[in-house]
Amino acid sequence: MLGNFTYENPTRLHFGEKSLDFLKQELSNFGGTVMLSYGGGSIKRTGLYDKIIKILEEAGKKVVEDPGVMPNPTVEKLYDGCRIARENGVDLILAVGGGSVCDYAKGVAASAWIDEDPWKRYYLEFKDPDAGAKILPVGCVLTMVGTGSEMNGGSVITNHSQNLKIGKVFDSRLMPKFTILDPTLTYTVPQYQMVAGFFDIMSHLMEQYFSGDDDNTSDYLNEALMRSLVHSSRVAIKNPRDYEARSNIMWTATWALNTLVGKGKTQDWMVHMIGQAIGAVTDATHGMTLAAVSIPYYKYIMADGLHKFVRFAKNVWNVNPDGKSDGETALEGLSALESWMREIGVAMKASEVGVTPDNIEKVADATILGGGYRQLTRDDVVAILKNAL
Amino acid sequence: MLGNFTYENPTRLHFGEKSLDFLKQELSNFGGTVMLSYGGGSIKRTGLYDKIIKILEEAGKKVVEDPGVMPNPTVEKLYDGCRIARENGVDLILAVGGGSVCDYAKGVAASAWIDEDPWKRYYLEFKDPDAGAKILPVGCVLTMVGTGSEMNGGSVITNHSQNLKIGKVFDSRLMPKFTILDPTLTYTVPQYQMVAGFFDIMSHLMEQYFSGDDDNTSDYLNEALMRSLVHSSRVAIKNPRDYEARSNIMWTATWALNTLVGKGKTQDWMVHMIGQAIGAVTDATHGMTLAAVSIPYYKYIMADGLHKFVRFAKNVWNVNPDGKSDGETALEGLSALESWMREIGVAMKASEVGVTPDNIEKVADATILGGGYRQLTRDDVVAILKNAL
Repeated sequence: MLGNFTYENPTRLHFGEKSLDFLKQELSNFGGTVMLSYGGGSIKRTGLYDKIIKILEEAGKKVVEDPGVMPNPTVEKLYDGCRIARENGVDLILAVGGGSVCDYAKGVAASAWIDEDPWKRYYLEFKDPDAGAKILPVGCVLTMVGTGSEMNGGSVITNHSQNLKIGKVFDSRLMPKFTILDPTLTYTVPQYQMVAGFFDIMSHLMEQYFSGDDDNTSDYLNEALMRSLVHSSRVAIKNPRDYEARSNIMWTATWALNTLVGKGKTQDWMVHMIGQAIGAVTDATHGMTLAAVSIPYYKYIMADGLHKFVRFAKNVWNVNPDGKSDGETALEGLSALESWMREIGVAMKASEVGVTPDNIEKVADATILGGGYRQLTRDDVVAILKNAL
Repeated sequence: MLGNFTYENPTRLHFGEKSLDFLKQELSNFGGTVMLSYGGGSIKRTGLYDKIIKILEEAGKKVVEDPGVMPNPTVEKLYDGCRIARENGVDLILAVGGGSVCDYAKGVAASAWIDEDPWKRYYLEFKDPDAGAKILPVGCVLTMVGTGSEMNGGSVITNHSQNLKIGKVFDSRLMPKFTILDPTLTYTVPQYQMVAGFFDIMSHLMEQYFSGDDDNTSDYLNEALMRSLVHSSRVAIKNPRDYEARSNIMWTATWALNTLVGKGKTQDWMVHMIGQAIGAVTDATHGMTLAAVSIPYYKYIMADGLHKFVRFAKNVWNVNPDGKSDGETALEGLSALESWMREIGVAMKASEVGVTPDNIEKVADATILGGGYRQLTRDDVVAILKNAL
């Protein structure tokens, strides 16, 4: 059944080649000091950095540099970003990069002007910002596709000393005010990162799909995005500069995690909980940690949600169920998923993302327990990780 | 190919049973004078009117009555609404009803404070409100499903003296600030209106789908909504109080026309252009005018967009293409559509919505020409209408 919910998503998206042309107009909606948050040197190598600096200058903005946002942004970097934003009286955080930079920017936006420890308040205790809290606006220029962070309130931060990687979902106040989505800006992402992003999208969809008894509109939309992704990813791995494929994947990624396809239904998210625990321990690439545990996880819970795995097989992978038991149909769906994963080239084993027999217990300790069709225990997590090695 | 676009939709939706509980909180965001726009007596008969008046009183609002919004809101009513809004210094227009009331409310919201004739500016000349224009905020409580007006900038107004029924699509400033979507409020809609709404949804989807050579994410999402609608409509016609079916249809209707599934692609809209011309001449129920011309229209243009009709047959109606020509597969898809239309009980002939051999020329004169796979001429429209009789 479609449960009760509120849907709200105020992010304005400018999509397509040359959509960076909209940045100057967007900047005019904010004050004079812009904090430019980005990762390493890639946006300097590609020339994107220079283009953005030029637009910021033309818009008459004072630029506050905030480089060095790492792939799994750390709590130390979050604290540092808050200091930079406060000391410079920043009016807008402009995040240029992938999901990590967007996630980080939202964390800073919510935290710069609070007196408490943001790690404790938002990420450990899952509290929301106060009603009248001063929240900085965030804008994004996306260069890597997968997380969906460009149109949601999500913010994943890693605390290495505590072995924790936690995703906080903020309300609509923290959703980016605008995002520039130019598929050609993603052409230069290395294949490994590109493919990890593809799997991240698929995982977001599966996390929302594999839960609930329902047959609702959200499930249909979810299947549509999965089908579109599978289709376009097969084109993109052969030709990463195929605009049609890359643009459709970019658009799919945004809608895979801007809350739409999860509306009114229960969700799972255990692949992300285990994957994030691996990330906290090994610092491996997010999408690959998800890939490494997905097949073992879904085989582990398949019997608990068999009807949905049958539907997945038929509607996403065109498995013909004639003459097969539900279990056979469902397994054929998972086989098709596995084949697609091998085809695009994601990590197929937890050992590829740094999990070893020696650190399995540490990963299990770092895993936030929950589940969809099945509530996982710590022992379940250990069993799944062993199957995944 | 996914073309360039900007996506923005700030409407906040409260979905589900008892979502009317959110109205008071929403009202607190606006000034003290609320114009209550609604249709005939139905919301008084069902008790919804009393509930809303009570909430408005509790919220301390001054209520300005604006009843009598007709199913095809007229330009005279639009002028009258503008006068009421201006004379009373209205701070919010609360539209309670179906798409007609929402459409009308947006028309008033854009027009109340302009000096020009809004019919001429917005509907005849398709101009937008000025940059700094005073636009009144609109909120909706939806009681009838189909138009999607609850989450878009669309506003259809009829000018009977000019034989014109024209849909203006306003920008995001005119999208409702909030909409209350309670599926149980739609239970009392008469079966004829309910079914007309179902077809209106299907038509919105087909209008956006049947155009372009592309294989993009929008097409996949569109097919998902069509599949969900077909599934739930079959349940709802047997049991209009099936919450699961009615709620999924309500949600599908919203996403069928809030711009998402048309993003980045060309669109058609000739069924609406012809249907609206019929409405202008005969004042028939909107969804039924669309139903009456759809099969003849799609058969007329099928050869021009054959690949998409084949895809429609396979992906929406599960037609097995093995051993069939593309033409045969496509026709089987249209047959499946036709069977579904008969099953839910929509108008199958133009004569059922008041078209006669005598007024066909008048309808053709009132039709705004355009098209997707084929640019229609006036002669084409006449031919389609004759086929539809």
